[in-house]
Amino acid sequence: MTYSLAGVDIKAGERAVDLIREHARSTFGPETLSEIGSFGALFAPDLTGISEPVLVSSADGVGTKLKLASMTGVHDTVGADLVNHCIDDIITTGARPLFMLDYISTGALSPEIVGEIVKGMVGACRESGVSLIGGETAEMPGFYSPGDYDLAGFIVGVVDRTNIVTGENIQPGDKLIGLKSNGLHTNGYTLARRVLFDHAKLEPSTNVDELGCNVGEALMRVHISYAGVVKAAVNVLGKDLKGMAHITGGGIRGNLSRIIPDGMVAHVNPSAWTAPPIFSFIQNKGDIAEAEMYRAFNMGIGYIIVVSEEKATDILKLEGAREHGATIIGEVRNLAGTKSVDSAPQNAKASVSKVSILNIDN
Amino acid sequence: MTYSLAGVDIKAGERAVDLIREHARSTFGPETLSEIGSFGALFAPDLTGISEPVLVSSADGVGTKLKLASMTGVHDTVGADLVNHCIDDIITTGARPLFMLDYISTGALSPEIVGEIVKGMVGACRESGVSLIGGETAEMPGFYSPGDYDLAGFIVGVVDRTNIVTGENIQPGDKLIGLKSNGLHTNGYTLARRVLFDHAKLEPSTNVDELGCNVGEALMRVHISYAGVVKAAVNVLGKDLKGMAHITGGGIRGNLSRIIPDGMVAHVNPSAWTAPPIFSFIQNKGDIAEAEMYRAFNMGIGYIIVVSEEKATDILKLEGAREHGATIIGEVRNLAGTKSVDSAPQNAKASVSKVSILNIDN
Repeated sequence: MTYSLAGVDIKAGERAVDLIREHARSTFGPETLSEIGSFGALFAPDLTGISEPVLVSSADGVGTKLKLASMTGVHDTVGADLVNHCIDDIITTGARPLFMLDYISTGALSPEIVGEIVKGMVGACRESGVSLIGGETAEMPGFYSPGDYDLAGFIVGVVDRTNIVTGENIQPGDKLIGLKSNGLHTNGYTLARRVLFDHAKLEPSTNVDELGCNVGEALMRVHISYAGVVKAAVNVLGKDLKGMAHITGGGIRGNLSRIIPDGMVAHVNPSAWTAPPIFSFIQNKGDIAEAEMYRAFNMGIGYIIVVSEEKATDILKLEGAREHGATIIGEVRNLAGTKSVDSAPQNAKASVSKVSILNIDN
Repeated sequence: MTYSLAGVDIKAGERAVDLIREHARSTFGPETLSEIGSFGALFAPDLTGISEPVLVSSADGVGTKLKLASMTGVHDTVGADLVNHCIDDIITTGARPLFMLDYISTGALSPEIVGEIVKGMVGACRESGVSLIGGETAEMPGFYSPGDYDLAGFIVGVVDRTNIVTGENIQPGDKLIGLKSNGLHTNGYTLARRVLFDHAKLEPSTNVDELGCNVGEALMRVHISYAGVVKAAVNVLGKDLKGMAHITGGGIRGNLSRIIPDGMVAHVNPSAWTAPPIFSFIQNKGDIAEAEMYRAFNMGIGYIIVVSEEKATDILKLEGAREHGATIIGEVRNLAGTKSVDSAPQNAKASVSKVSILNIDN
């Protein structure tokens, strides 16, 4: 018996690592000290102007959007999805994203597919100034169906302790600025696939007039990185930028509620924006209730910035704001029945009742 | 159609996150700023005495040892395996491990199994002073067989730039100190499972006299964390500690070769230590060639420290050295045929021919 007879192809692994190294090197900057392949990836963060550095990190996957990659044979976009999902998570604290590591796991390693995934990651990393400094490629015979793989990302950023954006200074009257998504981003794919492929018997290649493209293209649109416009907002608004939420699993309600203080409710008005047609297409094909749609999907809003009433229009003029369709989608109010923030029930923290979506909840 | 009918159990996800939060909180220290559940995990590293902080990071999995967890129903040990594998990777640079994040992916989420995995991670984190500050739990219907899951870990540590251990100062005459493993750690499980279960038709519950336990127990032994003894070695030896290698996939040769400078060869003498009986058991059952064994497995050495000849015996007296069976297992020599390091071929870098294992290679 040998290792390769048992199903582990060391040569394929080495070819994959070579491809990764070649691509990833293009993301290295002056802060990157070592090449991929040593036991640990070394990164010397430029801490100029930061008095008390706080590291902000996140681990994420792209969920069953990976099935779309297998179905369509397109593997670079899920790499970009992963990077941008990770970036959008940590920039909610005001952090500058520094570096990423990836984990790719599959039954039988295809260096070519790994190369495509990494190409997508590298493109997204370069776009947002993030270094791809390491990762793990695991060959796990017996764990995945042929063509399937799993993909996880890990990101680290840095923020000065005094500048961390938490949401704790959010007040009644603050405005909600929505930044548009271009589709499902990385959430709700299990439901979407069930509805469109299992139930409605469509194929990724099915052209749909109302989508202006085929089903696969509409579902595969790359998760948007909001790093550029968020960096501008942080720099320009300072303390008038009160809080930020990345709209992922759990939708607007599940994510915005994480930053709304006790005793307040964020009122969201869906008529303030137009969602991409993929959402109504899925809803109609699956006969899905409106409230369920808002639980499973971002419904056209990928990121929300909470800003003081006075500065709400300033943010709309920032570089990148128009590109991301920045618009006021609602405001923060006192919880009905409470006289002030001080008298709010303590157990309201992290409750989804902190977000009210007009015509959905009432 | 609803999200839960499509196969995503949001309630199970929330229960899993509650369990993780409860366990993980016990690993938090004064450097941990936020609780799990926000968009990014916040960690304020204590940089006292570090003039130029360098972050050292790694991404790892535990490979198909996960199949053993499914077969035996024991899920806490693979959590500990993951943490200790990650720790042992980054401490090779001399770094202090700071924090970890995990990625758990499964077809249908079992909060109880996730709780067990996290319990194992938390125990290992506490043992080595690492905070488990975040992670992602992904439910991916259609990706995994019932009972299967994938598991990845991401770790970050810090080291002062002037104190990074690279191996570049390794010289002929330096000694190799081996720290013993207690079994396969996290590598070679695809081969081991093929030989013992598919080929020899054993079960995890099969008792084997020469192993002193059943097959499952011998294969499931937890990857050792060498953080304690390595920290002591770094503190005591200073610049006499020349390089360190974590023996993972690729075995002694594949990993030790990463730190040996051009023009030198590390000569390893396997008679210097006794490997746990699981290795000869697998070898006999699978009729595996000796060289193949050294490629697929750590063969009883989990970590190697390269130290100056003068200080080689000092390391054997360190706290934890005896516990880990520290012993001199070889030495570094000039590459035969080269007169000095300066005349060495440049293309020898990262070549496995930089390691010679007595009676295996010659």
